[in-house]
Amino acid sequence: MTDALDLSSFRSRAAQRGRPGYWDFPEVQIKWAFEAGLPDPRTFPIDDLVRISERVLREDADDALQYGGGAHGSIVYGWEGLRDRLAERTRRVDGREVDRRGVLLTSGGVQGISLFCQAFLDEGDAVAVELPTWEAVVGSVQRLGAEPIAVPVDGDGLRVDLLEKQIEALRAAGRRLKFVYTIATFHTPTGVCLSLERRRRLLELARQWDFLVLEDNVYGELRYSGETLPTLFALDTSERVVKIDSFSKTVAPALRLGWVTGHPDAIAALSAVRGDLGVSQWVARVAETFLTEGLYEPHLDKIRAVYRDKRDVALAALEQHCAGSLHWNVPDGGYFLWCTLADGIDGREVMKRAFAEGVVCRPGERFCGDPEPAKSYFRLAFTMVPHEAIEPGIAVLGRAIAASTRS
Amino acid sequence: MTDALDLSSFRSRAAQRGRPGYWDFPEVQIKWAFEAGLPDPRTFPIDDLVRISERVLREDADDALQYGGGAHGSIVYGWEGLRDRLAERTRRVDGREVDRRGVLLTSGGVQGISLFCQAFLDEGDAVAVELPTWEAVVGSVQRLGAEPIAVPVDGDGLRVDLLEKQIEALRAAGRRLKFVYTIATFHTPTGVCLSLERRRRLLELARQWDFLVLEDNVYGELRYSGETLPTLFALDTSERVVKIDSFSKTVAPALRLGWVTGHPDAIAALSAVRGDLGVSQWVARVAETFLTEGLYEPHLDKIRAVYRDKRDVALAALEQHCAGSLHWNVPDGGYFLWCTLADGIDGREVMKRAFAEGVVCRPGERFCGDPEPAKSYFRLAFTMVPHEAIEPGIAVLGRAIAASTRS
Repeated sequence: MTDALDLSSFRSRAAQRGRPGYWDFPEVQIKWAFEAGLPDPRTFPIDDLVRISERVLREDADDALQYGGGAHGSIVYGWEGLRDRLAERTRRVDGREVDRRGVLLTSGGVQGISLFCQAFLDEGDAVAVELPTWEAVVGSVQRLGAEPIAVPVDGDGLRVDLLEKQIEALRAAGRRLKFVYTIATFHTPTGVCLSLERRRRLLELARQWDFLVLEDNVYGELRYSGETLPTLFALDTSERVVKIDSFSKTVAPALRLGWVTGHPDAIAALSAVRGDLGVSQWVARVAETFLTEGLYEPHLDKIRAVYRDKRDVALAALEQHCAGSLHWNVPDGGYFLWCTLADGIDGREVMKRAFAEGVVCRPGERFCGDPEPAKSYFRLAFTMVPHEAIEPGIAVLGRAIAASTRS
Repeated sequence: MTDALDLSSFRSRAAQRGRPGYWDFPEVQIKWAFEAGLPDPRTFPIDDLVRISERVLREDADDALQYGGGAHGSIVYGWEGLRDRLAERTRRVDGREVDRRGVLLTSGGVQGISLFCQAFLDEGDAVAVELPTWEAVVGSVQRLGAEPIAVPVDGDGLRVDLLEKQIEALRAAGRRLKFVYTIATFHTPTGVCLSLERRRRLLELARQWDFLVLEDNVYGELRYSGETLPTLFALDTSERVVKIDSFSKTVAPALRLGWVTGHPDAIAALSAVRGDLGVSQWVARVAETFLTEGLYEPHLDKIRAVYRDKRDVALAALEQHCAGSLHWNVPDGGYFLWCTLADGIDGREVMKRAFAEGVVCRPGERFCGDPEPAKSYFRLAFTMVPHEAIEPGIAVLGRAIAASTRS
């Protein structure tokens, strides 16, 4: 016999602010999963993962199956072999001098964001985020009792002019902006990139107003068209930018492997709040070997080609099935199309009708905090659904829109 | 050119309280690693891991390489197949009714502890911990601005009578104990078990004084002698105990796979503060298959036999090389011998001399907070060093003690 325990007086403020993670998923057969930012499983490098994983287990297991540090450095920072390779790649790609002390391995990009928030935010602090943005960052900020300040995004990314106004308003109220979180390249959900001019302006503002910049670059390598933009981290000369990267969108989410790159002092601050003992050394060594064998760059080329095609198939299908009642962006990269319904069409009804037929997209309110202004938007991830299923899925969506328009 | 950035005004209180995780390890050849709680690499089930890992990658990769949830439940809770197996095992071993909602997969046991602290502690809250105890829990408590209250351990584990006095003192000061963290079975560093009588008394106190109990059971399965004790979780009828388990000490740390078992409401609170997207589904499916194929129980039997022998080799070597100047416990399980130097021998000097010859143990102050009273203690982990190297390593230690006694 057990007597019921009321936990309400035990929960911390963080637990009260957070959203529990369990749900029962409705019993609907999902045929077209446009909802989550999932890679195409057909791009997973299975043969290489099997081969390298076996090699690491058989040749290096004495070390590789233990905790994750190395002879130098720390368990908490993660396997130094991979950190050295990632630092090397950053020097090449971003032209910045970085070594292993400037690289922390994390459980996906998301843990890097969460650690950054824990390292630099206290209750009442202000953080600027894009509107719309990824809800996980808002959750991380709010759990700590800090305030996410929403700054709108347009076709050139974050409205840096409006950011400055927000900073001025904060200062006028005796407050300070701790950092800006920006998905500067292939932003979720909108797919836009922060223009080069705005990147430079943002970095000027960071110096002028003394704030940090957390650049979420997890989609940054996935460019399908247009000219490459330097990352904020590459442009930064004031050590204010910390960059988040991940293998989740480029190799496989189940590696649970991301990395944070920045000034060693900033990385040390993240390590000081870390509540686990780092990532799997086994998986980190698999990724290291994937890089060392020169497999990562050709793999990126391959998935860029796959997703470029899928993007184009999705855009053509939207033109065919949704033109007139829907507006969408044409992204140069990333995973997402951001869709805006014509006036008078209720996004919630569209989502409901589409869902009943097996199509699921992510409703706009998930990116905006406030549900009301967001009922006309939804995000469509074109990456996971097989090529041949994209058009039929978008056809279902088109019918759902048409039905919602009539009603 | 970069201008230096002073991060001091940016760091959160948590980051100020935390200890950065990077260090340069001294350039000494370590031959006898008695320091960390590492398993014997010769016990790693390499063939099974290679085979099962390949099977998961080839047969299930479409799902298994994505994020970690399942058709029902949540990414944050982790792969439901493994949660179901673990719940089933808990019903069998602990005789408690648990289902997947009462199980959260974590990055080792340590993340479970950290999440529990985040879910149930605010600044100024009080938590009871054993003295000595594992330093990671003290770090997790202190980062949140909560206070760890040290309660001494004797040969029967936590001094529950002294705990009650601490609770009364807190109440008299208008404060409350939020929870007790206890490594009740094969405690680190001392190797002792909380007696059955004290287990029952602790649970009575938990009801009476309205606190939770976090039972760290990561060594609990590793009994080499003596009679099995029921876990606190097994004895609990008031839903106050949350239990931490891990595959790190029993299979391999690099799986980064632990689990928390408890009332679904407590588990939901942990999920609400979680800052990552759960553990690797790939690794979780490997562990699930390891359990499903019936490999886990025989593997536990095998490592118990290996570590029983190693314990006995270490005890005999201590008798041979350190008798008279050192006292140690004789643990019935776990990884550790807790060693107390005779009066007048400085533990720091012993550690230094031993280290210079390649022997490393963990100094007592790492488990006690305060360095001064702990300079006579050190912890010796007997699990990782190969059988044949244990005696020569302890001989080095014996010489270091003798040399420190003379000087």
